[in-house]
Amino acid sequence: MNIFIATVVDKTGTLTSEESWHCAKVLRKKAGDPIQLIDGTGNFYEAILELVSDKKCTAKILSGPLLQQKRNYYLHLAIAPTKQIDRIEWMIEKAVEIGIDEISFINCHNSERTVIKTERINKIVESAVKQSMQAYLPKVNELVSFKDIVASSNAEQKLIAHCFDSEKENVKQVDFKNKTTLILIGPEGDFSKEEVELALKNKYRAVSFGENRLRTETAGLYVCQTASILS
Amino acid sequence: MNIFIATVVDKTGTLTSEESWHCAKVLRKKAGDPIQLIDGTGNFYEAILELVSDKKCTAKILSGPLLQQKRNYYLHLAIAPTKQIDRIEWMIEKAVEIGIDEISFINCHNSERTVIKTERINKIVESAVKQSMQAYLPKVNELVSFKDIVASSNAEQKLIAHCFDSEKENVKQVDFKNKTTLILIGPEGDFSKEEVELALKNKYRAVSFGENRLRTETAGLYVCQTASILS
Repeated sequence: MNIFIATVVDKTGTLTSEESWHCAKVLRKKAGDPIQLIDGTGNFYEAILELVSDKKCTAKILSGPLLQQKRNYYLHLAIAPTKQIDRIEWMIEKAVEIGIDEISFINCHNSERTVIKTERINKIVESAVKQSMQAYLPKVNELVSFKDIVASSNAEQKLIAHCFDSEKENVKQVDFKNKTTLILIGPEGDFSKEEVELALKNKYRAVSFGENRLRTETAGLYVCQTASILS
Repeated sequence: MNIFIATVVDKTGTLTSEESWHCAKVLRKKAGDPIQLIDGTGNFYEAILELVSDKKCTAKILSGPLLQQKRNYYLHLAIAPTKQIDRIEWMIEKAVEIGIDEISFINCHNSERTVIKTERINKIVESAVKQSMQAYLPKVNELVSFKDIVASSNAEQKLIAHCFDSEKENVKQVDFKNKTTLILIGPEGDFSKEEVELALKNKYRAVSFGENRLRTETAGLYVCQTASILS
């Protein structure tokens, strides 16, 4: 059955404008068709379409909310967008399928891309959430400077994955369970030495991904999978 | 330093024809330039280019072989190619970066793609091996029927990831360490009931990836990552 993202008040779900258009124009749903709704904050609903137009669709709630169990960790991935945008988009889709809570894009000294359209990223996120049958929508933040993200986060543990030779924890050894974790993944040309120093001063721990040298987007995904597997 | 794939005999490495072309025409290397070689079976060499032409390049070995440590598991992923070829190609690149030993493509009842160019896949594999600085080349097999792969494998443990409701092990519980494992990942429309039954009859164990419904290519990658983290 098709899943749509909606705002639910009392016994009525109102699909977002994007979802209404998709429901009416692409899937050609009609009043009376059964659908599933998610509200993005963990709730699933069974519903039946009442009003169907390409601007606005509403549905009557038949049952729910059924609450999706929350993950036992909170993962915030802050990553430098790759030069080829499809690489980062692909990563976002996979990260959402596997499980992620918050995504930030960071502007670093060696960044080869300094602009990202979060509207487009949000569409990928929404599509992956529905496809993988989840009910929580990960938060997507606008691009921030490296300096700002380092200074601002309140995560319980903060990690930085850099390629300089130094003592590092293997990410497999990190305990993600029941914690909020922020991890910084650098651009193709790595973080600058100054950026790494700034992070370490701000109590970030350096982590590695083992022997193989991973691309930026592979590293991002590797963290999501590691947290998922070890929690 | 640039890494190339070569056959090494005595103190001379001969680059493959593809690599020779890349070395001479794309990277415009000259005789006397230092390069790194891998032979695909685990050995790294430091070398210096002697003969450079777009048909054939040779290099004098300066040091090596330096043997890359083998993984402590052998993973054979047999996957149904996705309808959109770029999805499976992405997955192959990432699987190689993270670690995989053998890749097969399977033709299933619900397959939406029944042809795959392994020559193209091999190029992706070679590029990812070099990019991630590994010295082992994973084996890539031609497309086979589901029936043939089920009947033919000698892997110590054999797994099938299907979406039917049944008792399944979570892939996190599988012990990959010091074992050869073959895992079958089905097409977008899942395996057929008959295929699952045939696999179970042949001592395959059913595995799941947890609650989220993963796309074919995400599932393939998730297995590589799980084996990498848990071994």
